[in-house]
Amino acid sequence: MSHKYVYLFTEGNGSMRELLGGKGANLAEMARLGMPVPLGFTITTEACTRYYDDGKVIAEDIIAQIEENLAKIEEINGKKFGDSKNPLLVSVRSGSRASMPGMMDTILNLGLNEDVINGLISGNSDPGFERFVYDSYRRFIQMYSDVVMEVGKKYFEELIDKMKKGKGITNDIDLTASDLKTLAQQFKQEYKEKIGEDFPSNPKDQLMGAIKAVFRSWDNPRANVYRRMNNIPYSWGTAVNVQPMVYGNLNNKSGTGVAFTRDPATGEKALFGEYLINAQGEDVVAGIRTPNKIDKLADEMPNVYEEFVQIANKLEKHYKDMQDMEFTIENEKLYMLQTRNGKRTAAAALKIAVDFVDEGMIDEQEAVLRVEPKQLDSLLHPQFDPKALKNATPIGTGLAASPGAACGKIVFTAEDAKEWASRGEKVCLVRLETSPEDIEGMVSAQGILTVRGGMTSHAAVVARGMGTCCVSGCGEILMHEQEKYFELSGKRYNEGDYISLDGSTGKIYGEAVPTVEATISGDFSRFMKWADERRTLKVRTNADNPRDAAQAVKFGAEGIGLCRTEHMFFEGDRIKAIREMIVSKTVEERKKALAKILPLQQGDFEQMYRVLEGRPMTIRFLDPPLHEFVPAKDEEIKELADDMGISAQELKTVIEGLHESNPMMGHRGCRLAVTFPEIAEMQTTAVIKAALKVNAENNGYTVVPEIMIPLVGEVRELKFVKDIVVATADKLIKDSGAQLTYHVGTMIEIPRAAVTADEIAKEAEFFSFGTNDLTQMTFGFSRDDAGKFLESYYDTKIFESDPFERIDQNGVGKLVKMAVELGRRTRPDIKLGICGEHGGDPSSVEFCHNVGLNYVSCSPFRVPIARLAAAQAAIKDKKA
Amino acid sequence: MSHKYVYLFTEGNGSMRELLGGKGANLAEMARLGMPVPLGFTITTEACTRYYDDGKVIAEDIIAQIEENLAKIEEINGKKFGDSKNPLLVSVRSGSRASMPGMMDTILNLGLNEDVINGLISGNSDPGFERFVYDSYRRFIQMYSDVVMEVGKKYFEELIDKMKKGKGITNDIDLTASDLKTLAQQFKQEYKEKIGEDFPSNPKDQLMGAIKAVFRSWDNPRANVYRRMNNIPYSWGTAVNVQPMVYGNLNNKSGTGVAFTRDPATGEKALFGEYLINAQGEDVVAGIRTPNKIDKLADEMPNVYEEFVQIANKLEKHYKDMQDMEFTIENEKLYMLQTRNGKRTAAAALKIAVDFVDEGMIDEQEAVLRVEPKQLDSLLHPQFDPKALKNATPIGTGLAASPGAACGKIVFTAEDAKEWASRGEKVCLVRLETSPEDIEGMVSAQGILTVRGGMTSHAAVVARGMGTCCVSGCGEILMHEQEKYFELSGKRYNEGDYISLDGSTGKIYGEAVPTVEATISGDFSRFMKWADERRTLKVRTNADNPRDAAQAVKFGAEGIGLCRTEHMFFEGDRIKAIREMIVSKTVEERKKALAKILPLQQGDFEQMYRVLEGRPMTIRFLDPPLHEFVPAKDEEIKELADDMGISAQELKTVIEGLHESNPMMGHRGCRLAVTFPEIAEMQTTAVIKAALKVNAENNGYTVVPEIMIPLVGEVRELKFVKDIVVATADKLIKDSGAQLTYHVGTMIEIPRAAVTADEIAKEAEFFSFGTNDLTQMTFGFSRDDAGKFLESYYDTKIFESDPFERIDQNGVGKLVKMAVELGRRTRPDIKLGICGEHGGDPSSVEFCHNVGLNYVSCSPFRVPIARLAAAQAAIKDKKA
Repeated sequence: MSHKYVYLFTEGNGSMRELLGGKGANLAEMARLGMPVPLGFTITTEACTRYYDDGKVIAEDIIAQIEENLAKIEEINGKKFGDSKNPLLVSVRSGSRASMPGMMDTILNLGLNEDVINGLISGNSDPGFERFVYDSYRRFIQMYSDVVMEVGKKYFEELIDKMKKGKGITNDIDLTASDLKTLAQQFKQEYKEKIGEDFPSNPKDQLMGAIKAVFRSWDNPRANVYRRMNNIPYSWGTAVNVQPMVYGNLNNKSGTGVAFTRDPATGEKALFGEYLINAQGEDVVAGIRTPNKIDKLADEMPNVYEEFVQIANKLEKHYKDMQDMEFTIENEKLYMLQTRNGKRTAAAALKIAVDFVDEGMIDEQEAVLRVEPKQLDSLLHPQFDPKALKNATPIGTGLAASPGAACGKIVFTAEDAKEWASRGEKVCLVRLETSPEDIEGMVSAQGILTVRGGMTSHAAVVARGMGTCCVSGCGEILMHEQEKYFELSGKRYNEGDYISLDGSTGKIYGEAVPTVEATISGDFSRFMKWADERRTLKVRTNADNPRDAAQAVKFGAEGIGLCRTEHMFFEGDRIKAIREMIVSKTVEERKKALAKILPLQQGDFEQMYRVLEGRPMTIRFLDPPLHEFVPAKDEEIKELADDMGISAQELKTVIEGLHESNPMMGHRGCRLAVTFPEIAEMQTTAVIKAALKVNAENNGYTVVPEIMIPLVGEVRELKFVKDIVVATADKLIKDSGAQLTYHVGTMIEIPRAAVTADEIAKEAEFFSFGTNDLTQMTFGFSRDDAGKFLESYYDTKIFESDPFERIDQNGVGKLVKMAVELGRRTRPDIKLGICGEHGGDPSSVEFCHNVGLNYVSCSPFRVPIARLAAAQAAIKDKKA
Repeated sequence: MSHKYVYLFTEGNGSMRELLGGKGANLAEMARLGMPVPLGFTITTEACTRYYDDGKVIAEDIIAQIEENLAKIEEINGKKFGDSKNPLLVSVRSGSRASMPGMMDTILNLGLNEDVINGLISGNSDPGFERFVYDSYRRFIQMYSDVVMEVGKKYFEELIDKMKKGKGITNDIDLTASDLKTLAQQFKQEYKEKIGEDFPSNPKDQLMGAIKAVFRSWDNPRANVYRRMNNIPYSWGTAVNVQPMVYGNLNNKSGTGVAFTRDPATGEKALFGEYLINAQGEDVVAGIRTPNKIDKLADEMPNVYEEFVQIANKLEKHYKDMQDMEFTIENEKLYMLQTRNGKRTAAAALKIAVDFVDEGMIDEQEAVLRVEPKQLDSLLHPQFDPKALKNATPIGTGLAASPGAACGKIVFTAEDAKEWASRGEKVCLVRLETSPEDIEGMVSAQGILTVRGGMTSHAAVVARGMGTCCVSGCGEILMHEQEKYFELSGKRYNEGDYISLDGSTGKIYGEAVPTVEATISGDFSRFMKWADERRTLKVRTNADNPRDAAQAVKFGAEGIGLCRTEHMFFEGDRIKAIREMIVSKTVEERKKALAKILPLQQGDFEQMYRVLEGRPMTIRFLDPPLHEFVPAKDEEIKELADDMGISAQELKTVIEGLHESNPMMGHRGCRLAVTFPEIAEMQTTAVIKAALKVNAENNGYTVVPEIMIPLVGEVRELKFVKDIVVATADKLIKDSGAQLTYHVGTMIEIPRAAVTADEIAKEAEFFSFGTNDLTQMTFGFSRDDAGKFLESYYDTKIFESDPFERIDQNGVGKLVKMAVELGRRTRPDIKLGICGEHGGDPSSVEFCHNVGLNYVSCSPFRVPIARLAAAQAAIKDKKA
């Protein structure tokens, strides 16, 4: 017997999601539960995969199975496909394992042709019936042409408009049966012109065309983008559901509707939905008539309502989750066309999870699995007012770099952002790209928009740290930074004009879209407690200043996994001392400049220690190439040179000397400490002195600093720097007369560090995986440049997700695993963490759990996400 | 019993080189053979390692062993250390496993002090003896101060000069015993002033000071540089030899000399050396008197000569290698002070190896091991006339980027180089750095000197390919390219001035140093045949044009392992078409530009195929980022824009769009083919059409092209490009009606490719390890920038060799090994090669043999080196 590619609804069940898709599995399950479902069949996801493997054709054996099952549903329903007396009409709908709005949705009324229509009309004397049939027919032609053959809708709409104009009417409803019949003819003519052949009249040809269209839609650009955003593998494929039509638009005893078992916006326990009498599904969506609230059905058709309520309750209990259902009523008979776990807002997800536990439907562990970690984001950031958003049209899209919504007046410089904000203006900072010097302006802005830079660009990373909305890398913008305006979608936007940014979708609006503040419910802490009780992975945060650290602690961070000391170097006047250090020509000059920085850096650490109250803090020593600290423009160089009392030419020569062809792989990280050991000495002094001081305050906690040496690729590099650290630290501790424990470890962010981790663990007390750089080096991708070709990589499906967002388990992950094993072999108690951007990505957190890390570290606003993701990973791990 | 750190010469033997150092082991061996050796002892290399481990002190137990053995040699020699009647005086000499000129060499006459001197003098009535003793004493003080305590020689020389001036004499020899006595006093005074304490009079203190100085000299900068250049591990340490003095300067029946068993310059079989009567070793070196040819000794002291000849012959037979010996005659008694395998020129090495086989001393396999592969280089390139070189002083040093010597007039542009050369001038091209546009000028130049760029910079790689001498990265040069002069060592060098370059040492001479052409002897081909018979690794070449390919075939290349197609893009007018392609806005425009390149590229391949006569050729598709093909300067942009009929502004925008932050990790390699598949199509067409055409010529060989896709990190990347290649190629082959085999493979140069090599091997028929890029990515080092900090890495001993020259076996090598294993697991017959610069480095070639690669590929002039290194690796492997 050939492999089974087609299942009757009565052959499947709810657990067969992978094979039948969500829609198919749930239709089968409802049928199995004895609910009123028009009985059709599902063509499996395997058929879709085979379609692609076979070079985009449906194989003969699959066609045979489709025809076989078509015959079975003809028999079950007592109707025949293409029969002029008693025709079977069907809907064809896609349905993959995960719900995917990017794909083809539905074709209704498939099976209609001239013969069938004539038969139908001659067998029914109802005066409105002829019009109903022709209306169905022209809709079918239009839908089929659009969805299956990709003839744009607009051609058909133009024909309708022309017809209405000719007849002097404005509403579709005023078109007569004869008008619609004429339109159907015109539509077929249009089809022929565009496609070059007749509109298929054979229902089986129509069916095969529609099935192919569903398969094809799996690979359209929208679907690809959606999959990438939601981490759905291309290999899954989609199923196709073929189901006999029922008619909500047959008469006034018919109708159609959608309903949720709970309010998807708030989670409130109440049937929530709407319906339309005498309508098909698309009418509800089209919004021509205002649908009724679902409660009204209790008055209009009490029996149907009662039956629906019972079914809804039964489904929710059965699936133990809030259900989103579609139904149709034909002549007062209820048909269920779909059920699925309903999409919901983060607030609703939390409430429903907590309520389900209280109602005894699920246990706490199950509840923890019920909330999508990424959703938590929206609870922590302002969002657009949904009503206002409905009327706004985006003018462009960038990368959704840091979530939340922002609305403000455009400013083009960090200084302006700061100044405008200080006088109470809400501003959005628009820049080609941001640099560390823009920090204060970024803090003052509601949102940040950049032309260049990816998900891990400076703007993106810093904005996420602060919880500020950011859209990055909108390359469509024509920027005129000097002249203080930009062009987008052919329009000019000046300083002071309003824009609005959606950092969760990357959309940009050229107008003011009001926002609403984030609110956190009591359910949140209850829910997060359940999560925390289950996770084994600790969650730390990446924070470089007391503000971010305090925010993260509020969000449950258990320490700092990455404090980038260089970020401290930009505040206030200290950048001057840094620059003085950089242009120093002798060790003595450099030491003099470093001496100026020491007390400032020590002060920073003291503040951080106090905020953390004894929680661990991993302090990374100076990492970026030095050229990032010096100005690039002539006038700025002149200014700095004057400040420093040297000639502009001299300074320029120093700055040119710092130029590198590939700074990402240049003189940075521990390489700076090898060439300038005095920098490591100064930083060690600051770390240790601050710890000694704060410990001496007897605040009831003990500071145990963790010093992290970045960019190590060879154990002797680490040993060299560690020797400096230990010599400096031990002397300070000894001189102080106090006790102080500290640890020295390294980042694993160079491939060589991963493959020689056994060696490196001889010197490192801990590893922190710097998966941003590790991803760059392992792929040989500069994150600043990869934007140029990554789109092509998605289009060609070479990549299905951005390796900078979601850890590449096959490559980068393999190196991480290797390093974990090698590191533990040398030092069984080595502490292992991750501090790259991946630390806040749920699938990457799961990976970190599975390879056995001790903690993840992520930006403050991602801490709750990481906590939940870690809990889910632990639960899944326990189950498996 | 404590660990043994000191061996009497009578306790060791010649096989104990690791422990006793070369000098110590050979002294012991000579003693064992009954040759006249003053019997001393050797302090082992382990003692040196322990000295460093213990924090630069000599441990008590080692001191005890030294004293114990000192007592033994006192007894053997019947003299006592510090005794005023019969004093033992010793020499102290360093001696590591490999001969190392960077270290401390010798202290003579150790053990002298006032008491000893007085005793000596009173016991000897010879009129010259007093003078001899005081001369020895002042020499000892001077040598000890200089070598052990680092008081500069010049202070002592000034005192001698002053003394001579005061006495109105010019020659040292005219100084009387009393003068020398006074000088000895002055020297001690000088020592006290500089060091702050008295000159040590206790012989044991002197001895310990000298031993420490030897240990210390292991770590001095000269020694570190020498070790790095010669791949000698720091961990080896040095031994110290303490040997009773014999006196060649005692009287006219005494003398000292050095001799080789064969001529070290030519390899001719004849005792070759020189000696001085009444002299100590340093007198020979100092060159005050002209030494005699060794033959003359047969007349002067026939018995001694006879004994020496017998010993020399015995030693050569014993060691089965040409010996370099030091001897001293004291009162007509011969003493052997050293023997070692003598350093020799490449020509001599070849001749000696071949002669030894013919003389039945060694077999062919042993002969193959006797020549240092790197030495072959000097047989293939011009060298400086050794006599002229003696009188030349370098004005600076850069990297020894491409071997050979060059002498010519300075020019500053490629155009000038071409023009001057065309009128018969010999020129050296001096540039800040070279770019592909400079190729023709580089071809015309005798040598190339650059201010920037490392061992794998454009200049270095291209020069090595052409066999042209190149010194790169001489950062000391102050360059004024526009004004056509540069400054170095405070002097100005103008266009037209002579300079000379030594590409084997990196030295730069500010004058004309004549060169001599390379000559290859008949021994060479005989020797290389022996090597070829033994190696299992194939040797290919990296060549991008017929000239280099032909050269490499002459040198024995068995095919091309890397043909960089982009290098073909710069010749003549084709760069215009490339630029047109780059600025194309649509696929159609791009295809039009590519159509212009196609026939040129096809023609290139045809020529190459013909030169190779059926040998395989691996053709790498376009690799570098596109910005490398476009001009950077405003006037050049203007010119190009005019050429292309677009505005300069438009072109500038396109060029700016090509800018990348880290081009090494940017839009290049197969990423170009993913975004612009039509480039891969064009290149495939050129490769296949050329092969079809040349095969159709029926030249008696068959072309089987190998297409190599660069920079693959993910198998789907390779599959995407391979699909284009295969579709294009198969259609062309089918249309031609002919048969053609071709292979598609990839470079492994991205760490991710190495760790996912099992996946990649599903699509790749061969791997070629691109260890240049693999080293860059694995270390996270940009080779263009690493120069900034690598010096610090050598100084701190984090690195002992340049990972771009010598493959890093622990890191990069681990990835190569992993990829080999994973690749073979998927595809057991996968062909594996290396095409990075390492392919020409002997130690890396050995690594390639050991991990089981099929071939190495290197620049043409390195082919003989690789052949020999591969043979040596195979022999060593067989032995092990």
